[in-house]
Amino acid sequence: MLHEPPSCVKLATMQNNIRIVLVNTSHPGNIGAAARAMKNMGLSKLYLVEPNRFPDADATARASGADDLLANATVCDSLAEAISGCSVVMGASARLRRLPWPLREPREAAAEIVSAAETAPVAIVFGREHSGLTNDELEQCNALVHIPCNEEYSSLNVAAAVQVISYELFLALRDFAPEANDQLELAKADELERFYTHLEQTLIDIDFLDPENPRLLMRRLKRLFSRASLEQTEVNILRGVLTASQKQVSRN
Amino acid sequence: MLHEPPSCVKLATMQNNIRIVLVNTSHPGNIGAAARAMKNMGLSKLYLVEPNRFPDADATARASGADDLLANATVCDSLAEAISGCSVVMGASARLRRLPWPLREPREAAAEIVSAAETAPVAIVFGREHSGLTNDELEQCNALVHIPCNEEYSSLNVAAAVQVISYELFLALRDFAPEANDQLELAKADELERFYTHLEQTLIDIDFLDPENPRLLMRRLKRLFSRASLEQTEVNILRGVLTASQKQVSRN
Repeated sequence: MLHEPPSCVKLATMQNNIRIVLVNTSHPGNIGAAARAMKNMGLSKLYLVEPNRFPDADATARASGADDLLANATVCDSLAEAISGCSVVMGASARLRRLPWPLREPREAAAEIVSAAETAPVAIVFGREHSGLTNDELEQCNALVHIPCNEEYSSLNVAAAVQVISYELFLALRDFAPEANDQLELAKADELERFYTHLEQTLIDIDFLDPENPRLLMRRLKRLFSRASLEQTEVNILRGVLTASQKQVSRN
Repeated sequence: MLHEPPSCVKLATMQNNIRIVLVNTSHPGNIGAAARAMKNMGLSKLYLVEPNRFPDADATARASGADDLLANATVCDSLAEAISGCSVVMGASARLRRLPWPLREPREAAAEIVSAAETAPVAIVFGREHSGLTNDELEQCNALVHIPCNEEYSSLNVAAAVQVISYELFLALRDFAPEANDQLELAKADELERFYTHLEQTLIDIDFLDPENPRLLMRRLKRLFSRASLEQTEVNILRGVLTASQKQVSRN
């Protein structure tokens, strides 16, 4: 499903707002491979927090033509410095930690990041090769992104993780276009909430829903409509149908 | 959206039916990194067609714990040997070639591969680091898969490409589950057609739709519901709502 891409200027602004932050990377080859993965997917803002060895010939070799990203990389003394000014900071986490951070899959994380990148810098933070991010670093993130994988062998190479996330960001940037178009604006949370309330009341009015026990049915219907990612005009149409149906009841 | 996974036995059968084929790889490090990417995503069947150097210490180092895949890799003299017995053979292509092969995006390719892997071996074929697959090799493929990317810097590292495709295969295997489960069976085309007919009639009954001019509204509603990929039970619920709404009309 191909859409019209966002305008070049807008796309470039959004891409420039997306920072890939690598924390305390041990192997410079991974930094180079991450830069290549980023450039393949149209990203360029590489931030390195206390890299073990950088610059380094291994990084340049593995970057394979993405050495401009290495040359322009921002080397920082702390994570706080790398994420300064970012509205969304997403930490990549190899494990399903028992921690109270919201956990996203890459696809939904990418949609959220791209949406935020429209107006401000955002960051995705990747931890050390062997130990990931510390709790202190995780606390600087708004949410975690976990790449689904074989849980018995779950530690992706850090550049491979950057590749997967950057790929999802590329798709999300491409698919972001329609929202720039008023006709296709997605319904907001409060509009959906009013739609669900209207739906529930109508189902009660037409004697389909037992008001004493509405839970399961409404949950199923919400699941169905949320899969469809309703647009505002669609919500308006559906509410028009509900109102027409309610009018039939009041005639009785 | 998490589903119940397919039964372990079935999942293992499908995973074992998926071959990752690397043709004439120059750098053994890429073979190791591809093995790691595969194992992270639950795949294990690695086929190597005329690798430049294999086995090799660089492959083992980059495999980082996925050395069992290297030990069990099948080394072949030709692509024909590697894809022998495969029902679907998908060639990974860096470029949008002006060639008459059907071109898939990774997500749709993964769905097709996983579906075919239910009953027979399938293969995804990755070409040389610098020159990809030859026309002769492409002719042995049923279709091509192209990873969307920055067209100005479009050559992914081969292990990075294996990572992206394996990630999509992991998701497709996980999401394949619902079809195996009766409760979540998707509505068939004829069931959807009856639902849309019922919907149109109800909208006419409640005076929402002008029967002289139903086209645009029905098209919009079909678009909405087709995005949601309705399950059979959901169609039954929606038709129940329609019937309840029609009953209010007949009371008048």
